[in-house]
Amino acid sequence: MSELRQNLISREWVIISTERAERPDQFARPKEPKVLPPHVAECPFCTGNEEKFTPGETYRHSDTNGWKVRAVPNRYPVLASVGERVRTVEGIYRTMTGVGVHEVIVEHPRHDMTTALLSRDEVADILRAYRSRYGEIRKDPRIECIIIFKNYGESAGASLEHPHSQLVATPIVPSQIRDRIQDAIHFWDNTGECVFCNMLKQELAARERIVFESEHFVAFVPYAALSPFHLWLFPRRHSSSFDDSTDLEIDDLACNLKTVLARLYHGLGNPDFNYCIRSVPTDEQQTDYFHWYLAIIPKVIRTAGFELGSGVFVNTALPEASAKFLREVKID
Amino acid sequence: MSELRQNLISREWVIISTERAERPDQFARPKEPKVLPPHVAECPFCTGNEEKFTPGETYRHSDTNGWKVRAVPNRYPVLASVGERVRTVEGIYRTMTGVGVHEVIVEHPRHDMTTALLSRDEVADILRAYRSRYGEIRKDPRIECIIIFKNYGESAGASLEHPHSQLVATPIVPSQIRDRIQDAIHFWDNTGECVFCNMLKQELAARERIVFESEHFVAFVPYAALSPFHLWLFPRRHSSSFDDSTDLEIDDLACNLKTVLARLYHGLGNPDFNYCIRSVPTDEQQTDYFHWYLAIIPKVIRTAGFELGSGVFVNTALPEASAKFLREVKID
Repeated sequence: MSELRQNLISREWVIISTERAERPDQFARPKEPKVLPPHVAECPFCTGNEEKFTPGETYRHSDTNGWKVRAVPNRYPVLASVGERVRTVEGIYRTMTGVGVHEVIVEHPRHDMTTALLSRDEVADILRAYRSRYGEIRKDPRIECIIIFKNYGESAGASLEHPHSQLVATPIVPSQIRDRIQDAIHFWDNTGECVFCNMLKQELAARERIVFESEHFVAFVPYAALSPFHLWLFPRRHSSSFDDSTDLEIDDLACNLKTVLARLYHGLGNPDFNYCIRSVPTDEQQTDYFHWYLAIIPKVIRTAGFELGSGVFVNTALPEASAKFLREVKID
Repeated sequence: MSELRQNLISREWVIISTERAERPDQFARPKEPKVLPPHVAECPFCTGNEEKFTPGETYRHSDTNGWKVRAVPNRYPVLASVGERVRTVEGIYRTMTGVGVHEVIVEHPRHDMTTALLSRDEVADILRAYRSRYGEIRKDPRIECIIIFKNYGESAGASLEHPHSQLVATPIVPSQIRDRIQDAIHFWDNTGECVFCNMLKQELAARERIVFESEHFVAFVPYAALSPFHLWLFPRRHSSSFDDSTDLEIDDLACNLKTVLARLYHGLGNPDFNYCIRSVPTDEQQTDYFHWYLAIIPKVIRTAGFELGSGVFVNTALPEASAKFLREVKID
């Protein structure tokens, strides 16, 4: 019989449908290695095209061979960086001007790289770019929330092959994040503990869903994982905002993230995925009750009308089996 | 510049990204009419296979030519119909036994039909099957919420071509539905009005996003539509639960739903879509503050990491333009 599980942090229910359960390796896609060229003349993120396609660079990390990571404005921003933040409310007409930030982080000069195969230092360079841009953008008083995310592969929404991630800073707090914060405050008021710290403590005691532990981070499949191989990376140290990470933590996160993505890459045949980093709204920055984290969602199943209608996900893999599978993937 | 809009009912923000806005007809997919056969020997829902593939029928509507609509148990149910509802809570281990109902409504004996092309009476027969099963399943004291939904097309999660929809009854109230109810109660307490009735009144006054009006239902694109051609069908009469619909209302809903789906079919080249019917949890049945409705989400754009990380959708079509486009589609 299947089982429903409720996530302690989000109150979301998920159906763990063991009737349909497949062996974890059945989610792997047939390996048909798509070989990309290292450089594509018309790619907006490849070297040589910086001035033409991505003017207005906001961040550059270089060595003697040239740039290694860049941040640039998105050419088709969903929010504009100039303008006033003006909110109006009149009945159903509840609006905010579309001001904010939308940047692209170009992760590597080469067209044919992927995070799973980069060195730890190269991943750390990307994370440092995130941190730098987060810290800078946070100072803008129009900004309330900053989401860093990566779409990898077409089914995950990526429209360009060149390795890149994105940052969107919004002039509002999304209702989903507001709701999680309210719940986290209730938990704090009831227990005197951060709900994320509490979950991490229990996961470390149970050891059933841990995928990879490093000095400062723990990667695990949540007890109420929304989909197969859904992963959370929590910092061990309580901190509400990603840009509070120290250099040591960034290096350690690079090792953890790279390892976990390499296990997905080798174990599941280079699946498409999304990841995102969630922090507390920028007005708060540090709180006792909210903990920043990185979520990874491999695109191995499709959501449909039931998820849309109920908000309840159906996970066809047992979270403990997903975690065990990923623990055992050999990555070198 | 783009604009953020907040939905009055869900408090969800959406970015209406006019920078990227396309003309509505650019969402249409190239017409490559896939011609299906009227009968497929191995299809579990085709006539002749009833005993073999779909035993345990729970509903049948027939005329002298045989059955027209059937309801049957899903062969791979996400929730099981036998067993006790047992909830346990211990730290992160929050579970409920996977009891509930998962049925398939086979909408037509023919393999090659689609709702947009059925007669009004045929659609009414399907809706009557929904109502009958809803009313019956609601009596089960283990059930708290009933979601009726349809996945049409592969990208919308349909795994079978034969026209069908589904019903899942859960032993819990999904957190997303609970949150909407809480917000609706606040609105009621603050204003003495159902928030859905309030929205409908404003949409009917503004007339900018109405797609189709019938005697008892109004189809419109919400002011803060999550995606292009996202549609809501509201009953004009305040009612919290779908199965409270009268025969006259069912006939009228059939006309409205069929018209709107036909406009999507002809206007956008037979797009994949999901629809779902949301009612109040079964324990309540009728309340002053919650209004049942049907939502249609055509699959014309893809969601990605930003939506996952923030819960904020990016709609690349202006809701007013989506509505105008659909109003003008000729369906003869």
